[in-house]
Amino acid sequence: MPQITAVTVEDVRFPTSLTADGSDAMNKDGDYSAAYVVLHTDGVDAAGAPLAGHGLTFTIGRGNDLVTAAARQQAARLVGRDVDEMAADMGAVYRFLGSDSQLRWLGPEKGVVHLSLAAVMNAAWDLAARAADLPLWRLLADMSPEQLVDVADLRYLSDALTRDEALDILRAKEGTKADRVAELTRTGYPAYTTSAGWLGYDDAKLRRLCQEAVDAGYGYVKLKVGADLGDDIRRCAIAREVIGRDRKLMIDANQVWDVGQAIEWVGELARFEPLWIEEPTSPDDILGHAEVRRAVAPIGVATGEHCHNRVMFKQLFQAGAIDFCQLDTGRLASVNEIVAVLLLAAKFGVPVCPHAGGVGLCEMVQHVSVLDYVAVSGDLTDRVTEYVDHLHEHFTDPCVVRDTGTGSAYALPDSPGYSTRMRPESVARYRFPDGEFWANAGDAAAVPPPGPRQATGGSIVPADR
Amino acid sequence: MPQITAVTVEDVRFPTSLTADGSDAMNKDGDYSAAYVVLHTDGVDAAGAPLAGHGLTFTIGRGNDLVTAAARQQAARLVGRDVDEMAADMGAVYRFLGSDSQLRWLGPEKGVVHLSLAAVMNAAWDLAARAADLPLWRLLADMSPEQLVDVADLRYLSDALTRDEALDILRAKEGTKADRVAELTRTGYPAYTTSAGWLGYDDAKLRRLCQEAVDAGYGYVKLKVGADLGDDIRRCAIAREVIGRDRKLMIDANQVWDVGQAIEWVGELARFEPLWIEEPTSPDDILGHAEVRRAVAPIGVATGEHCHNRVMFKQLFQAGAIDFCQLDTGRLASVNEIVAVLLLAAKFGVPVCPHAGGVGLCEMVQHVSVLDYVAVSGDLTDRVTEYVDHLHEHFTDPCVVRDTGTGSAYALPDSPGYSTRMRPESVARYRFPDGEFWANAGDAAAVPPPGPRQATGGSIVPADR
Repeated sequence: MPQITAVTVEDVRFPTSLTADGSDAMNKDGDYSAAYVVLHTDGVDAAGAPLAGHGLTFTIGRGNDLVTAAARQQAARLVGRDVDEMAADMGAVYRFLGSDSQLRWLGPEKGVVHLSLAAVMNAAWDLAARAADLPLWRLLADMSPEQLVDVADLRYLSDALTRDEALDILRAKEGTKADRVAELTRTGYPAYTTSAGWLGYDDAKLRRLCQEAVDAGYGYVKLKVGADLGDDIRRCAIAREVIGRDRKLMIDANQVWDVGQAIEWVGELARFEPLWIEEPTSPDDILGHAEVRRAVAPIGVATGEHCHNRVMFKQLFQAGAIDFCQLDTGRLASVNEIVAVLLLAAKFGVPVCPHAGGVGLCEMVQHVSVLDYVAVSGDLTDRVTEYVDHLHEHFTDPCVVRDTGTGSAYALPDSPGYSTRMRPESVARYRFPDGEFWANAGDAAAVPPPGPRQATGGSIVPADR
Repeated sequence: MPQITAVTVEDVRFPTSLTADGSDAMNKDGDYSAAYVVLHTDGVDAAGAPLAGHGLTFTIGRGNDLVTAAARQQAARLVGRDVDEMAADMGAVYRFLGSDSQLRWLGPEKGVVHLSLAAVMNAAWDLAARAADLPLWRLLADMSPEQLVDVADLRYLSDALTRDEALDILRAKEGTKADRVAELTRTGYPAYTTSAGWLGYDDAKLRRLCQEAVDAGYGYVKLKVGADLGDDIRRCAIAREVIGRDRKLMIDANQVWDVGQAIEWVGELARFEPLWIEEPTSPDDILGHAEVRRAVAPIGVATGEHCHNRVMFKQLFQAGAIDFCQLDTGRLASVNEIVAVLLLAAKFGVPVCPHAGGVGLCEMVQHVSVLDYVAVSGDLTDRVTEYVDHLHEHFTDPCVVRDTGTGSAYALPDSPGYSTRMRPESVARYRFPDGEFWANAGDAAAVPPPGPRQATGGSIVPADR
């Protein structure tokens, strides 16, 4: 009965570049940002508060205005829609928003218009879950196999996964879902941390953070590599010394290498026995990842945070290119595309270890990982979900990661929705460029390297140096 | 000595949806559009006119504002740069503009920020050629192998093409370039037409346009297919009846099929002996194209207009997925990425038949095809470049296609630059949304299907039905 009455899309940027949080060999100075969509309705939720859906995609600063502008165009098409009708057929909502062939030309299914579609559909899913007064993972886990397959975008996948195969995968797990929900309620979903290993941190900070990760119960620690081999060897040695041989070490190159260079460099770091090398080369290079994987085994290959859609994941699986699927909840176009990738991963037997860390991503991936275990893969082997301990204070229902005795883990979210409602005071303070923080930041923050600062408006743009 | 003093980026849209020009099974109602970049300088050209660089990328309507906004941010970084210094190292200009890691996150190297980079770098190349008082193909063809390889973006390609291999390819053609320039000056570069076969045309118009293509000397005609098999069979029969068996027929599905469906559908059309099936499935599906190609041989597989970067083309070649490389001058990030793809194509022996037809694309591809023949492949076998006879009147130096006795062909461009300077009166009339045409068009034109019209500004967007 409630209808969507208006949409708000905000460009929210946090000045993470000031502290080198998030720094890696490709991305040296990201300002973690969200294109933040709110679908307002004329209804109320179970608690009597105004009913709204909140969604976002993650970027690292400049260009967040482009995603925001695209999301505004897409979300406007939902104004006037009935919330219950939408919730009853979310596959149709997804297809409706993706059906604009003029916007499709700008991808298709990639780049700004796909990131923005993710933000809008994430908001629609949050709305559907809040309308049902359920956390999103529960809304999805309670669906029948037919309902969940109807949600999934299976276009272009039938050579690898038919609808019937998808149904078979879900039906095989149908009867035991409640057991796995009970298990995760006790144990949480296994987490690992990247907080220790950003490239911009010095050795003393790296050592201290690795020790803190051990003390917090993490069985996994991830380091950024790829800028300088000598540095990488020294940093991996420090990490191994602190975490010992029983805990897992992962390394992440953030796409800086060509294929041959990746194979050589990882060979030099093999002595530290990393569990995986993440993003060894261009995220588009499916065949390249397959070649790296053959060469560096038994070190695994992981990628996905820049894998732009289900067709790319299909091929990564078909080519035997990856050992770990790191899908991203802001880059894939929401649950509709994510469920398709979870099904593909289950069919090909590849564990899903979602990418997170960026603002709001940890809040979302917990729902996806729980859904995967409860309803799709039914397996925790080699599964671990990324966690970075920053920026959670900006959300009204932040994720909770704690040591459950068997290691650090995400506690099952129990608030209604997708956990991505931002605090109004955070939005007001960090809205770009007019929020209180940015209005007072001056040129010290957010100066683009290298070269002059980029102008964002006006048709004639004079030099502004 | 001249410096870039300002940049202008315009959102120019032509109402092609009103006549079904450009209609196909995926894109039913495109308004052919350009994100049009002008780099203004304080210098003058050889004719004494103000020196400026003009470049564009092509879209089909909504979203052109997003590309325009992105191009504005990127192009602003060139203000204050010295034109001669830029022209002396265009590889450095390309890397400079691509080095913004925050914008890179939105791709990388795909979607809106890559389309906009193409527009800006196309303008930079036009500027370099005008500063040299040469047509762009000549500027490039006159380069030494070392200079041309320095222009090419070879990142992520070394497993398929090393710098030394690239140099060898160019050196092998170095001594005979002048002969091929002389040949093309006589014959032009072979062209084919898509004007006849848009899906929105009725049978009578299709028949008439096929006859006109024959009369104009075209040896090739291309039809859009993929919406309805019965329609496709009838339309192919009409085309074959008119063009006979000696001329080539191509078919283009614009990505509407899954892999298995493509194989079945093309099997039904095999009786019409098409030269190629173009875009049978998702442009991201490298392995899918390879499977289609194996199944439909001897019908060739062609794709490229949505192939977003050189890494994807590398894999299409490595996987043996295509018979024809249809690179796009608005989607690849200008000459820098195009030269890399020409070199890869030459190494793998795949003919390059560039995509064109959209506004300004024919103007650009003629330079690319001539460069390919003169300096890279040295081969015209199976090469033919797309041509559509519309929207050329908006350019000051439109391409010229004529029957040279051996079939229709692009005449060698002889004006300085990249042939993409638009007439000021066209920009003024078709600038969106405030140009004379759009300001007076009302809602009859440019209404997005399906659903309410999309709003483009403002934070709160009410329903506007």
